[in-house]
Amino acid sequence: MVSCSAERLEDKIKTFSKFGDTGRGGITRFSLSPEALVARKEFEKRMSALGAVIVTDDMANMYATIAGSENLPSIITGSHMDSVKQGGNYDGILGVLSAMEVAETIVTEKIPHRHPITVVVWTNEEGARFEPAMMSSGVICGKFEKETMLASEAKDIPGYTFGQALKESGFEGEVKNRLTPEKYAALVELHIEQGPVLEAENYDIGIVEGVCGMINYEFTFTGQADHAGTTPMKYRHDALYAAAKTIQYLHDEFDKLDEKLVYTTGKISAHPNIHTIIPDEVKFTLDARHQNPAVIAEVLEIIQKIPAEVERCQVKYEEAWTRRSVAFNSELVNYVENGAEQYGYTSKRMYSGPGHDAQYVADVIPTTMIFVPSEKGHSHCELEYTPVESCLKGVNVLLETLLTIDREM
Amino acid sequence: MVSCSAERLEDKIKTFSKFGDTGRGGITRFSLSPEALVARKEFEKRMSALGAVIVTDDMANMYATIAGSENLPSIITGSHMDSVKQGGNYDGILGVLSAMEVAETIVTEKIPHRHPITVVVWTNEEGARFEPAMMSSGVICGKFEKETMLASEAKDIPGYTFGQALKESGFEGEVKNRLTPEKYAALVELHIEQGPVLEAENYDIGIVEGVCGMINYEFTFTGQADHAGTTPMKYRHDALYAAAKTIQYLHDEFDKLDEKLVYTTGKISAHPNIHTIIPDEVKFTLDARHQNPAVIAEVLEIIQKIPAEVERCQVKYEEAWTRRSVAFNSELVNYVENGAEQYGYTSKRMYSGPGHDAQYVADVIPTTMIFVPSEKGHSHCELEYTPVESCLKGVNVLLETLLTIDREM
Repeated sequence: MVSCSAERLEDKIKTFSKFGDTGRGGITRFSLSPEALVARKEFEKRMSALGAVIVTDDMANMYATIAGSENLPSIITGSHMDSVKQGGNYDGILGVLSAMEVAETIVTEKIPHRHPITVVVWTNEEGARFEPAMMSSGVICGKFEKETMLASEAKDIPGYTFGQALKESGFEGEVKNRLTPEKYAALVELHIEQGPVLEAENYDIGIVEGVCGMINYEFTFTGQADHAGTTPMKYRHDALYAAAKTIQYLHDEFDKLDEKLVYTTGKISAHPNIHTIIPDEVKFTLDARHQNPAVIAEVLEIIQKIPAEVERCQVKYEEAWTRRSVAFNSELVNYVENGAEQYGYTSKRMYSGPGHDAQYVADVIPTTMIFVPSEKGHSHCELEYTPVESCLKGVNVLLETLLTIDREM
Repeated sequence: MVSCSAERLEDKIKTFSKFGDTGRGGITRFSLSPEALVARKEFEKRMSALGAVIVTDDMANMYATIAGSENLPSIITGSHMDSVKQGGNYDGILGVLSAMEVAETIVTEKIPHRHPITVVVWTNEEGARFEPAMMSSGVICGKFEKETMLASEAKDIPGYTFGQALKESGFEGEVKNRLTPEKYAALVELHIEQGPVLEAENYDIGIVEGVCGMINYEFTFTGQADHAGTTPMKYRHDALYAAAKTIQYLHDEFDKLDEKLVYTTGKISAHPNIHTIIPDEVKFTLDARHQNPAVIAEVLEIIQKIPAEVERCQVKYEEAWTRRSVAFNSELVNYVENGAEQYGYTSKRMYSGPGHDAQYVADVIPTTMIFVPSEKGHSHCELEYTPVESCLKGVNVLLETLLTIDREM
């Protein structure tokens, strides 16, 4: 079997880790920031050197295409180069570098392929500076209104919009260059798992069957602020006790559902938050994810069973946002699995908890993803790490998957 | 029975409500602030008009004394004039105004009394600007080191000390004027209840038997921050779940103890407090109060039974501070009860949850307190309110109690 190059891959990881280097092992590379533009230029330079033709669409998504031997739609692979604040050197960028390495292997090893191979760089996946996340894949896949996105304001500079950043970047291209089903046959995105499962269970490759649906709720408990020293227990309307009791209830009930369900109460606030005053308002968030919409429906039923009053406090909750479950193309999923098998890598079928550009593209062309392990599950932080040998396994599976698509589709 | 004057009392309440008026029904009158100094001058003016001799001690505590017919130690009554930020017109100041009204009634009605009657104003009871609370009664009763108190820094002006404020106030007097057992026979302090019990149970007067002992603990739960979407439940170390479970445990166990126990988890914080990240650190406070040290000991036992690890999170707790229970002089308590009975007022024996200057004085001379109801239990806020008719009942009981002490001691 052909193998991609660990040395070349390592060089790519090291080179791109300089663009936005925090000096503490991670990067801050907001979309269309000066650091991101340097990374885009390095991408252009390297892909041009491979003989790729590079175009950008109107959302600054970049497509670098190596010609195939027949007049067929392109097989596309890649990810994003932007990061969260003080993020790591793997989330997103590894999918771009893997795609580049696959292209380089195909070119240098002169591997025959009928379809063109395109390496894509999506703009503003993280949404760290301009919300929402997955903005540009979302626009071209019909999930977001472009005008609304252009008006999205930077979190750090009041009045500075994504539209302005796009104009100033020099990477604003044309609508006609957008990914469409006519021009593209299938997409495969490699990404780090961002969780601990592959490492903990000793798997090389995650076969990503889809992206979990999720719900996000905010709960508000309204009680009454009274003096901690003078108010008998029976007169209290303690919003924090009501909230704690509800967190316990949610755990008790959710734990009866499918074990793949993940749910998190990550954020909590109390008012007035003074040790001698009974809290009159407590809010907490609930994030719940599962691949199966029926399980999410069960989660909602459990939420709806919370009484309107808990411990003499009013309970209100509202949906902050939801995301439906996306199943990837089962044929492509099988190709990934076979690819891993051919290399002798261990693999596990799984759903992605976090969202990815691929989930929007999945509505437009056949799509799937490949996961490589994340050391200790670290993600969105400077500790993010996957050894180059582990990355290479993913890159090899990506190469094999693209070549299978090239043969079969 | 002689009655004090509702009109005069109302005039006093209205006059003093101007000194630090927030314009929204409350006051901000930090100790030794310009507003507090104006209030002190009004106190001097009014007490001088009654023929009182006024001295101040080295902590600016003011003593305004009306001579008695015999050469005996003084019977002393009063409270504090400082408030919390955006506090009300009753906490503290009502005890001073009631004492003034009692003195005025004794003088104008020419009620004979053997002992001198002293109206006291304690400096910095709230500790709202200079910590700790009950600073000046604490110093003269041997609870705090004076030098440390003088160095206490203002919360709003870095480097500005209580000592400087004291110097600049013009009210710094002499050590020889401090309250001592030789010069003072007994103290009675009138105060608002600051809780809902008297109003809810329809009592005119609270017979205060003492001040609850209290403990204050801070709990810290240490887990691990992981991605909400990728970390299976079985791998989680969710510090907020561990905290919620512990709050539930404390409620379950504490509720088995005496019903007079009050306990509050008033303050909570989570880190990193992001809805998509499992919290790795959660802290909450616990405040528990009861008149009986044995019940507080039971509370501590329950705390000590919390395992070192809850839901795979480390649990640590530490005592922030404690205050021992103080029982007031039982003879004086009986005098208050008899006084209420003679006026035909309903009364209830109770312990104070909050701390008061009287609890420090109780270690030096026989001491007790009288509570009047707080509308809806409001306290330490602009909504603080007690109708003047309800206040007057307390003032009459105070008068009767002082006259009983004058006869009996």
